[in-house]
Amino acid sequence: MSSIPVRLGILGCGNVGASLVKIILEGQSLIESQTGEVLEIAAIAVRNLSVDRPPWVPRDLLTGDPFAVVTDPTIDIIVEVMGGYDPAKILIEEALRSKKSVVTANKSLLSDYGEEISRLARNQGRDVFFEAAVAGGIPLIRSLKVSLAAERVRRVTGIVNGTTNYILTRMAEDGISYSDALKSAQELGYAEADPVADVEGFDASAKAAILASIAFGRNVLLQDVSREGITAVTLDDFAFAKRHGYTLKLLAICEWIETEGNSDGKISVRVHPAMVSLTHPLASVRDAFNAVFVEGDAVGELMFYGRGAGGLPTASAVLGDIIDAAHNLRFGSTERHMARPEAQILAIDELEYQFYIAIDVSDRPGVLGQVATVFGENNVSIMSMEQVGLGQEARLIFITHLAKEHAVQKTLGEVRKLAAAKRLVGFIRVLGKIDN
Amino acid sequence: MSSIPVRLGILGCGNVGASLVKIILEGQSLIESQTGEVLEIAAIAVRNLSVDRPPWVPRDLLTGDPFAVVTDPTIDIIVEVMGGYDPAKILIEEALRSKKSVVTANKSLLSDYGEEISRLARNQGRDVFFEAAVAGGIPLIRSLKVSLAAERVRRVTGIVNGTTNYILTRMAEDGISYSDALKSAQELGYAEADPVADVEGFDASAKAAILASIAFGRNVLLQDVSREGITAVTLDDFAFAKRHGYTLKLLAICEWIETEGNSDGKISVRVHPAMVSLTHPLASVRDAFNAVFVEGDAVGELMFYGRGAGGLPTASAVLGDIIDAAHNLRFGSTERHMARPEAQILAIDELEYQFYIAIDVSDRPGVLGQVATVFGENNVSIMSMEQVGLGQEARLIFITHLAKEHAVQKTLGEVRKLAAAKRLVGFIRVLGKIDN
Repeated sequence: MSSIPVRLGILGCGNVGASLVKIILEGQSLIESQTGEVLEIAAIAVRNLSVDRPPWVPRDLLTGDPFAVVTDPTIDIIVEVMGGYDPAKILIEEALRSKKSVVTANKSLLSDYGEEISRLARNQGRDVFFEAAVAGGIPLIRSLKVSLAAERVRRVTGIVNGTTNYILTRMAEDGISYSDALKSAQELGYAEADPVADVEGFDASAKAAILASIAFGRNVLLQDVSREGITAVTLDDFAFAKRHGYTLKLLAICEWIETEGNSDGKISVRVHPAMVSLTHPLASVRDAFNAVFVEGDAVGELMFYGRGAGGLPTASAVLGDIIDAAHNLRFGSTERHMARPEAQILAIDELEYQFYIAIDVSDRPGVLGQVATVFGENNVSIMSMEQVGLGQEARLIFITHLAKEHAVQKTLGEVRKLAAAKRLVGFIRVLGKIDN
Repeated sequence: MSSIPVRLGILGCGNVGASLVKIILEGQSLIESQTGEVLEIAAIAVRNLSVDRPPWVPRDLLTGDPFAVVTDPTIDIIVEVMGGYDPAKILIEEALRSKKSVVTANKSLLSDYGEEISRLARNQGRDVFFEAAVAGGIPLIRSLKVSLAAERVRRVTGIVNGTTNYILTRMAEDGISYSDALKSAQELGYAEADPVADVEGFDASAKAAILASIAFGRNVLLQDVSREGITAVTLDDFAFAKRHGYTLKLLAICEWIETEGNSDGKISVRVHPAMVSLTHPLASVRDAFNAVFVEGDAVGELMFYGRGAGGLPTASAVLGDIIDAAHNLRFGSTERHMARPEAQILAIDELEYQFYIAIDVSDRPGVLGQVATVFGENNVSIMSMEQVGLGQEARLIFITHLAKEHAVQKTLGEVRKLAAAKRLVGFIRVLGKIDN
């Protein structure tokens, strides 16, 4: 007994779209035997009909008219893998208004309009699933939404950008410079010719906003994320980290912070490089892999690890969402839709970290005293200091005790004004606590 | 607007049951705001009403009559956290017949009767959820069932017993013997006074059977699992492993194997200690943590990591299941129920591994030749050999090339008959490939 086929309209046929078409067509009997669903690709909307496509993409399903696809009454589920805001947003909205469920991998769109789109889905009694938007093939979003639905999640700490993790892994393991590692990433196709979205942390920030929204049930937007990329990270930073049992990772950190006199929690969302202890599970996440570390009150510590990008892993996540959406359509059910109130965002200024700070100064008597005095005047307490001679100059490397970000930023502003201070050559926050 | 409360009947109030009561009672407003569900504990069935309970367990909800609970028409969901077969099995069946959904953490029961219970649930139009039965708080079962529903999973490799992982971690890191590490585990409450269920791999085998059933959609039973515990692992084994960049872990391995001329796949399920490369993500899973490594055709490599036991993490998984079951009851939907055909089991005899084998022999000329000849006669090819002098005796340590298990077992049987062979002191399979 076969089920009535579920008809799919796919928007976009790039790497993810083509991989999805492949696993659906090649996996038909597997999908039916494992899930009971029969998937039928009804149409594939593409921007340019004359572009070459992989041989398995059926030519007769291609169309240049995505609006016809999202309003086609014979189509059950719209799969949006085109990316970008325009026309993806209006197509998704039109699909929901036409009572279709939607599966999307569009992190940019969701990080700006996630709650708006969820609200529309809720009102239409349909699903919007987006497992593939964060950490590719890793079943993270559904775990947070369903398995951990009743958990008080305290913190989510993720390596969610494979390109930058590859670059940092090469620097750590091969001792090559940032620019050589970037070149290697570009040669392997991990980084774009214009790498700014990855290396400046924009991609990770969009994912951080989505993760924070799901983990804490509040509407967190891309603009709420404090962002710092990896372009300033040097081999000297790695050498220091290694000597102290640490490595460097670009982290997306979402934190739920309860403060006195505030009935609701505040949310901090930030993306920045961090010193991570080699004993932390995130430290051993190498190359282009992603991993997300979740801390909750009852569940304790969890980590999800896998391929965060690539056509097939991403398509696998999209396919899981399609099956789930099909199952819900069959029962007339939807996923749980809780409205997400506005988030109260805690600025990174207010957070406390330990900081690694490296400053090149003129190597003459009294300079360390001048610099240390500025730290002290701003109540930034120094845990350890190393001085390295560099000929005419010396490098001062500090690890602070826990200090407020704004106090440290003020300190650095004032240190810069000292005649003896030549340049800030290292500034990295520490994950957890460094005490050696 | 509050929902109509979902009424829970809880069977058992040990560590997991009491933790569940705690997080439900203390988390009521959190649960309602995050999930929309209002959970009401209707009854807690216990074996002995006069036993002391933690102070937060409401005395007026305790009952000695579990049959009244599972048939109570005002109760929506039965939560079975009593463990064991009897009366857990009959209570779960009675609950399903009374049209209740069931959440259970009972790995033993599921590893023997999982398909039978699922079939009953299917016929009754209700859910049986069991996230907590494998790897405690880690959202693994739902990820395999839903997110990876359409994935061709090839292999699942797990550290699913925290007690043995703690013991092996102590041996590896502190260089203490198996019996001292076991004593330490018992002092910390990680191991029972009678540790046999953990150290002989019974607990891991039950979880392996459940994992294989879910990952491959076939009915795999506890009796299908090849089982070997950790009691024979020595510090010498660890020393050898370390020198070669490996460590030792007790693994549960579920594998889907396609052979020529067989239209369906065969399944291998086994639990045994293994040499794991230090670069493998499972190698860095320390202490009582669990982790499960999943390999699929499209998704590639995934790993799920977290606390596999303990009252609160396990209760967190149970609570996630309760919320999911409540959501389905509200919609009149259920999880996808696919019948699981009988599994074709591939015996461990038929598998190929590289083997680490250590044999103590009389230290006189010609013995190595005798031993090596037996290996050769059985077509077990030796990749490397080390000889260590032990006074009157010598230890021969072999790493074989890939060899069939039955050929290696035959080899060892014949080696034992050699007058010069004193004892087999090490026998461990290698995960993946060792070539140094």
